[in-house]
Amino acid sequence: MSRFKHLISIDDLTKEDIDYLLSKADSFLPIAEEKRKLKILEGKILANLFFEPSTRTRMSFETAMRRLGGDVINMTSQEASIVKGETLADTIRVVSKYVDVIVIRHSLEGAARFAAENSDVPIINAGDGAGQHPTQTLLDLYTLKRESKLDGVKIALVGDLKYSRTVHSLVKALMLYKAKIYLVCPDSLMLPEELLEEVRAERVEIEDAISEVDALYVTRIQKERFPDEEEYKKVAGSYTITSSLLENAKEDLIIMHPLPRVDEIAVEVDNSKHAIYFKQAFYGVPVRMAILSEVIEWKRD
Amino acid sequence: MSRFKHLISIDDLTKEDIDYLLSKADSFLPIAEEKRKLKILEGKILANLFFEPSTRTRMSFETAMRRLGGDVINMTSQEASIVKGETLADTIRVVSKYVDVIVIRHSLEGAARFAAENSDVPIINAGDGAGQHPTQTLLDLYTLKRESKLDGVKIALVGDLKYSRTVHSLVKALMLYKAKIYLVCPDSLMLPEELLEEVRAERVEIEDAISEVDALYVTRIQKERFPDEEEYKKVAGSYTITSSLLENAKEDLIIMHPLPRVDEIAVEVDNSKHAIYFKQAFYGVPVRMAILSEVIEWKRD
Amino acid sequence: MSRFKHLISIDDLTKEDIDYLLSKADSFLPIAEEKRKLKILEGKILANLFFEPSTRTRMSFETAMRRLGGDVINMTSQEASIVKGETLADTIRVVSKYVDVIVIRHSLEGAARFAAENSDVPIINAGDGAGQHPTQTLLDLYTLKRESKLDGVKIALVGDLKYSRTVHSLVKALMLYKAKIYLVCPDSLMLPEELLEEVRAERVEIEDAISEVDALYVTRIQKERFPDEEEYKKVAGSYTITSSLLENAKEDLIIMHPLPRVDEIAVEVDNSKHAIYFKQAFYGVPVRMAILSEVIEWKRD
Repeated sequence: MSRFKHLISIDDLTKEDIDYLLSKADSFLPIAEEKRKLKILEGKILANLFFEPSTRTRMSFETAMRRLGGDVINMTSQEASIVKGETLADTIRVVSKYVDVIVIRHSLEGAARFAAENSDVPIINAGDGAGQHPTQTLLDLYTLKRESKLDGVKIALVGDLKYSRTVHSLVKALMLYKAKIYLVCPDSLMLPEELLEEVRAERVEIEDAISEVDALYVTRIQKERFPDEEEYKKVAGSYTITSSLLENAKEDLIIMHPLPRVDEIAVEVDNSKHAIYFKQAFYGVPVRMAILSEVIEWKRD
Repeated sequence: MSRFKHLISIDDLTKEDIDYLLSKADSFLPIAEEKRKLKILEGKILANLFFEPSTRTRMSFETAMRRLGGDVINMTSQEASIVKGETLADTIRVVSKYVDVIVIRHSLEGAARFAAENSDVPIINAGDGAGQHPTQTLLDLYTLKRESKLDGVKIALVGDLKYSRTVHSLVKALMLYKAKIYLVCPDSLMLPEELLEEVRAERVEIEDAISEVDALYVTRIQKERFPDEEEYKKVAGSYTITSSLLENAKEDLIIMHPLPRVDEIAVEVDNSKHAIYFKQAFYGVPVRMAILSEVIEWKRD
Repeated sequence: MSRFKHLISIDDLTKEDIDYLLSKADSFLPIAEEKRKLKILEGKILANLFFEPSTRTRMSFETAMRRLGGDVINMTSQEASIVKGETLADTIRVVSKYVDVIVIRHSLEGAARFAAENSDVPIINAGDGAGQHPTQTLLDLYTLKRESKLDGVKIALVGDLKYSRTVHSLVKALMLYKAKIYLVCPDSLMLPEELLEEVRAERVEIEDAISEVDALYVTRIQKERFPDEEEYKKVAGSYTITSSLLENAKEDLIIMHPLPRVDEIAVEVDNSKHAIYFKQAFYGVPVRMAILSEVIEWKRD
């Protein structure tokens, strides 16, 4: 029996749920690494309803489903724009009668939960606007578990801590693991007040973080957030991770990034032992295999 | 041996052909309902050539093909716009050498028949402009068979009877089953003269239809059909199906709609026992399974 | 063990490599013709990264992969436009961790080789701008081998010999087979100087070519190449292949075209015994089956 039907928000999961999913991901890791195919979801169909495009997330869900032996149906972008003419509820009601599980990405916060209310089959939230993106958080946690540690991890969040959906979800989940959080950001991109209150966090300079922490979690600083381009350049530049900045890094520091990156991490860093952001993207496959097999299991019972 | 190679128009089918396909759909219904996968089309490939997008039709064809064990290749919308540079005949000649069956949707009436003339493999018409959409008609008939009755059914067609391709095809097929047809529409959206002459039909008010018929077939009234928006609103509003309108409905009345709906049927009606339009969309899966297995069978002989 | 990991340019292949691939294509031909499915790439996933759309090439790669038992993941056009925000290197690094082989089409010359440098898995070039399109060249050679002959073939290249990427690659490969090449083109669309120097070629009129050669390779003359539309019409018209032009053709002349055609070959020619351009497009399937099975083999070792 499965622990849950839908995966809408990381907040819906207990620490036990998360631990369970991460150890399930462990069991799928060799399949994803050796690029083999199982038959456990043979005959099952996943529908990707991406109202907003996302290469990495969609392709890793599609890879995960196929490695489990299942089929995938994608809504095309042209179809997505047409579907907007009808209510999301109607679309979900119909598609949920065709397939076994739906992965949805939508520009509106709350869209995934609304979809779940209208669906016969499990809904997995692959990002709903400013809302949640729980499978990203789970793969972030899995990366920490595999490449560093989760319990009591010292992690610095770098860049845009104000608007980054990824950061907000991760911070909440890290609380479950008694992580120590370091905040590295300009004043204008500070973590929202309500999160700051919940969190065991300390604000530091990037240099101090690098010599102290187990993990750097770097995010993109978006130009649109700054009224003045000069101001943007000054800020963005001061958080760029370079080889020289890493000279004082802890031996086993890992550098994470949800990707895509622009220039927050210099290309020269890619070949350092610290760089694990591409591996992090890869971990999306075993984590999504765990999630898909879990929610579809629910349906069967 | 199969009864036909292509499925272009409902007019190409005899009553025996239709009955045969509907009973074949019956045999696939448990597979579609239990969302299982057969192997009878294993190794076969369906190409979806949708020159106009259509979520419901394409996704239910894709679902049907996969539940039969086959593979699906979709032309992307960007490819479709490029393909327009070459003749449809050339596109079909090439694609028919790759795959086992082609489903085509095109904006031009006659495109599907023209495709069939240039194809080595079966062509299924998924809508050609103002022309035909035979698989929609078959799933409409199947819905009547499963949820009400086909022979001598009393059915009211509601809304736009002038421009609706779906209504025109359905009316012709219903004649084979000695249906009694009630027409509920504004003067300006009346069934075309040539169909009226063929049909055993009677014009009634919506209230009278509801207390009399076995099935309501509701269609969308499109704003573009009215020069004056005020006129549109008046007309559209007077054909909206609401709970209060349904108070005098026959016990076993079913309400059908080809979807997408806008506001022809109030959301409050969705939970009534009469509402079967989402189930109707689902019936597209077993019906299209029947059609696909039938035409591909032909190819083998 | 495979002979190569990536397929970027026809120039990277020796004559032995090409012969080996063409005979491998022979072994897959019955599968492609009878539209059957093997299991030799079961569990393997191909990612189509088409930054520029291409129906024929993409669909025949997808068909080839499925006939070998593998799965296919397509990047959508909307995703492609978004991906442009990150470097191609990053996209390839991530996707190569998901899948087993990547087919790439890109508008920039050199993109495929650059992708190969950043990929864990084999990269197949499906066209990089003005650069290479090696799988097209291989299917052209395969068509000659099957429908005419390769060694010492007399072949006329007709139309735009200056800008056609397809022609340039083919000419180089034909040199390996001691082909005799006839050039049929207006002065303004002559083969580039550097190719002319390498090649055993002779310039002739279309009428003389037809009575002399084993194969005509016709290409499209693009209107955009001419400043004056009148000039274009005059030129284009004088190279159109018609039935009357073919009256003096050698008994076993074959007419090839990479497609899509506009009006370089009159439709009346399609039914002549000389016309094999649709069969040529079909040969893309066994040739791409050979390539896919070859490069993925490499990965396994």
